[in-house]
Amino acid sequence: MAPRVNEEHLQQRRANIMSTATEVFIKNGYEHTTMKHVMDATGVSRGGLYHYFSSKENLFEAILEEDLRNEVAKTESLLKTTGSHWNLLMQLIYGKDAKSDAKMDPLAPSKLEFFVTGRNDERRKTYAKKRYDILLPIFSNVIKAGQESGEFSNCYDNEQIGRSIITFIDGIALGEAILPQGFIQPEKQFNLFADFLKKALGI
Amino acid sequence: MAPRVNEEHLQQRRANIMSTATEVFIKNGYEHTTMKHVMDATGVSRGGLYHYFSSKENLFEAILEEDLRNEVAKTESLLKTTGSHWNLLMQLIYGKDAKSDAKMDPLAPSKLEFFVTGRNDERRKTYAKKRYDILLPIFSNVIKAGQESGEFSNCYDNEQIGRSIITFIDGIALGEAILPQGFIQPEKQFNLFADFLKKALGI
Repeated sequence: MAPRVNEEHLQQRRANIMSTATEVFIKNGYEHTTMKHVMDATGVSRGGLYHYFSSKENLFEAILEEDLRNEVAKTESLLKTTGSHWNLLMQLIYGKDAKSDAKMDPLAPSKLEFFVTGRNDERRKTYAKKRYDILLPIFSNVIKAGQESGEFSNCYDNEQIGRSIITFIDGIALGEAILPQGFIQPEKQFNLFADFLKKALGI
Repeated sequence: MAPRVNEEHLQQRRANIMSTATEVFIKNGYEHTTMKHVMDATGVSRGGLYHYFSSKENLFEAILEEDLRNEVAKTESLLKTTGSHWNLLMQLIYGKDAKSDAKMDPLAPSKLEFFVTGRNDERRKTYAKKRYDILLPIFSNVIKAGQESGEFSNCYDNEQIGRSIITFIDGIALGEAILPQGFIQPEKQFNLFADFLKKALGI
């Protein structure tokens, strides 16, 4: 039994570090966070921290992967619900309640920073690509299903509409990150974009 | 005469530094550029460089302001041309030839970096706001004029459509910066977004 309890304990400790580190990244941003900040916030020793994560980049990637897994799991559970494809698409964009006032991911500005400052690094670019390759089919598959069921018009390519959704969400995340909160009126913008999509999908 | 020639010479020297520094920022990005890089690339001494610009931030802001002035001047000359408001709007989004294959601003990734990494700095945030306050009316005024002339539908608020244009352009700039070039298919995306706008403006 002992090894298993130990393994669970180690996993729990790793999860705790990631959870506290997420708060640290939200507070300081990616560039201005150091492993020392994470050690101080978690109370874990230097050796303890490096046992789990070889670098700040490695730690941040672990958090990104965890977020992406949660996103995919949430999507898969949404896809099992019945209802219109339009409603499903709105839930994918806005979150479970399909309302545009859903809070933005508080880690989003740090994620932007991670990808923007590391854009000339091959590893970082590959990582951004992998993320896009997971996100795009989430949107384009729902649009395709809606087109096949006759709920949506076939006028536009499902993948291109999926790309435009990611572009718009990213543009909002960027505006919210670099301008005073609410300044770009994200709710109204999402409502207008939903209307653009409605027209393009023939709803 | 001497002082005037001198003044012209100083202005020319300042412009040369800014032009070379732009290339340095394009190559290295904002964070990874130092004043030493700029000195080496321009061949200007440390004292010479700091005579014109008190810091890297100050230098970058001067470049941003120059770009913004050029943007506004270009817009003002466009506004004097006759033609449809729709065509004018496309020129504002795509550049003079109103084609979606216009090259992205090569400094755009560094600008993103400047605003994203400095997002918790009050000065940087104020600066981003000032920039948005100049850009937004460029789009919303053309839309308003098109609505008043009857060319565009009044169905949507001109300012909201203007905001959505900035969001989409920023989203594309972000994707182009952090993903392999062309990977997000910016031309096709701009074409689709133009169709969204057409429908929203009743064209």
